[in-house]
Amino acid sequence: MFQSVISGSGAYIPGRVQPNESFASQEFYADGKKLLQDSQDIIRKFKAITGISERRYADGELNAADIGFLAADAALKDAGVNREEIDQVIVAHNFGNVFVQGIQSVAVPSLASLIKHQLGIVNPSCIAYDILFGCPGWLQGLIQADAFFKAGIAKKALIVGTETLSRVIDHFDRDSMIFSDGAGAVILEYKDVTGSGQGLLASVAQTHSLKEVNYIGMGPSANPDSDQNIQYIKMNGRKVYEYALHHVPSAMKTCLEKADIPISQLKKIFIHQANAKMDQAIIERFYQLYDSPAPENVLPMNIDLLGNSSVATVPTLFDMVRKNEYPHHQLESGDIILFASVGAGMNINAACYRY
Amino acid sequence: MFQSVISGSGAYIPGRVQPNESFASQEFYADGKKLLQDSQDIIRKFKAITGISERRYADGELNAADIGFLAADAALKDAGVNREEIDQVIVAHNFGNVFVQGIQSVAVPSLASLIKHQLGIVNPSCIAYDILFGCPGWLQGLIQADAFFKAGIAKKALIVGTETLSRVIDHFDRDSMIFSDGAGAVILEYKDVTGSGQGLLASVAQTHSLKEVNYIGMGPSANPDSDQNIQYIKMNGRKVYEYALHHVPSAMKTCLEKADIPISQLKKIFIHQANAKMDQAIIERFYQLYDSPAPENVLPMNIDLLGNSSVATVPTLFDMVRKNEYPHHQLESGDIILFASVGAGMNINAACYRY
Repeated sequence: MFQSVISGSGAYIPGRVQPNESFASQEFYADGKKLLQDSQDIIRKFKAITGISERRYADGELNAADIGFLAADAALKDAGVNREEIDQVIVAHNFGNVFVQGIQSVAVPSLASLIKHQLGIVNPSCIAYDILFGCPGWLQGLIQADAFFKAGIAKKALIVGTETLSRVIDHFDRDSMIFSDGAGAVILEYKDVTGSGQGLLASVAQTHSLKEVNYIGMGPSANPDSDQNIQYIKMNGRKVYEYALHHVPSAMKTCLEKADIPISQLKKIFIHQANAKMDQAIIERFYQLYDSPAPENVLPMNIDLLGNSSVATVPTLFDMVRKNEYPHHQLESGDIILFASVGAGMNINAACYRY
Repeated sequence: MFQSVISGSGAYIPGRVQPNESFASQEFYADGKKLLQDSQDIIRKFKAITGISERRYADGELNAADIGFLAADAALKDAGVNREEIDQVIVAHNFGNVFVQGIQSVAVPSLASLIKHQLGIVNPSCIAYDILFGCPGWLQGLIQADAFFKAGIAKKALIVGTETLSRVIDHFDRDSMIFSDGAGAVILEYKDVTGSGQGLLASVAQTHSLKEVNYIGMGPSANPDSDQNIQYIKMNGRKVYEYALHHVPSAMKTCLEKADIPISQLKKIFIHQANAKMDQAIIERFYQLYDSPAPENVLPMNIDLLGNSSVATVPTLFDMVRKNEYPHHQLESGDIILFASVGAGMNINAACYRY
């Protein structure tokens, strides 16, 4: 029996720490007006809602492809795979390489080509492409690679999620404090798992794009005196929260059912680090669907220190836990885990995996 | 026997014609200096090399997602398929929606989500994502959809290629005259073709990203007095030409061999409209690999009137021929055709199809 197995992982956590305190002198705007609240109050409230204390920003000389390469290189070394045997380099992002001056998103050539270049992979049959699917893009890359394996057109894939959100945020918008930079990667291989049953068991993906299409999108600065022709990442936080709570738990349940796994066997959930309170509420509602309380220690989280780095949060968190860099969370062979994500599109996905 | 069959196609050809003559008053620069040649001479030489007489630009109020929607809607109507049965909306592009002021590329939410929104598709299991793979992106979307069908995760896909290159060109660069705007789309369905043998027979894809990675990329204006922080599409024409001639014919041959089709059965080649002279040279070299002259009427071309619209050229040309809008080129049931493309990455692909 062949299944898609993660044989290695890697991450790049930028070194530059940006604590909440660094926003203390920032002026914030909402509804076209400057907020009169004390900035310390704004930061305190932000921390209470999102759980974020600090986040990481990549240094100016490193763009999204560069940090994606660092994560990819680490994953290849971790897997011990010959990089010339990789059939697909799949890179998820949403903003490409962002030039700090001018906020221009650039992805020609694709980030996947740039990363393949930096990895020095010669093999022309190793094809490199980018996927844009909002924050769930990295997990969708994993789902796509699994399909390519099953279709017989690939056997080994490198899947990277990389983003430098610090370069597309509106500094006058309180939501700017949510976003961060980072990159994560895994190697996925199609392997005979007779005996162990390891690997990807089932997946689910959804796109809701009627009224939901603009819950996360682009828009001008909240400060009306700022150049209104420049577009920044904008989020309708309340709508995103309601949407996620309504749809993500049921998608996760559908995925677990497709894998034919009882909820009692589930050991860890690696969910997109969007907002600590929202993620905890999703998990509670997910377990409510099974009339069961959420168990202790099912939910590793790193958003408090790393913020929301879009496509990078899930592979980064997974890499940390996998390598025992996360206190109180370990993975053992045979553990059932669930990946889940939600983001711009609006898109949702989930994948059930036997470690 | 199930194969992936194109059940409908559509295109959007922008109405605004931009003849070569419209560049007569343009100042061109190369190597940091203003060219002293008469602009009429520059245009004449451009026409001789590329075969382009005029190109189309989309009106300012239509962005890449809008024209992609128009092509997609036409393809859905042509196929007569219930749009709620589409499992995947795959949109190939390289620059997203480009805001004319500021040259900012935007793809949050993805163009696929925006197009699904405009199409009014409700079904959440219809997932929408973008693929970035240079000019071969649309054909790669077709190859991916075929793989998803074979893996059993989809049965019907809408594949769109859309681009507004007129918004990312450096007006001081002679290459700006090559590029144009457009959108094309097809519906691909997994069908029982026992008897007819119609559908996608084989495909090939390659990425060369060592020294080739920057043959097509982004760079500042050729005019040193222009804002050097803004990045425009830039091409090393000679390198692209040499690369394409060296690699595309053999990839096409590999594809035909995978499909087990003798060259004598090949009726039409739908090749990316990059440059008329380059495309003709590729086809000649392709037939040389079979020690055979290129037959008359195997190569429909529309670059003379439509320019190079990146991901949109192949589906647009295919739609025109399919709907008998192209004099002297028709398709009949059972005809063997070859799709082929080359572009930024550098990426190449080819697909052999029984019409």
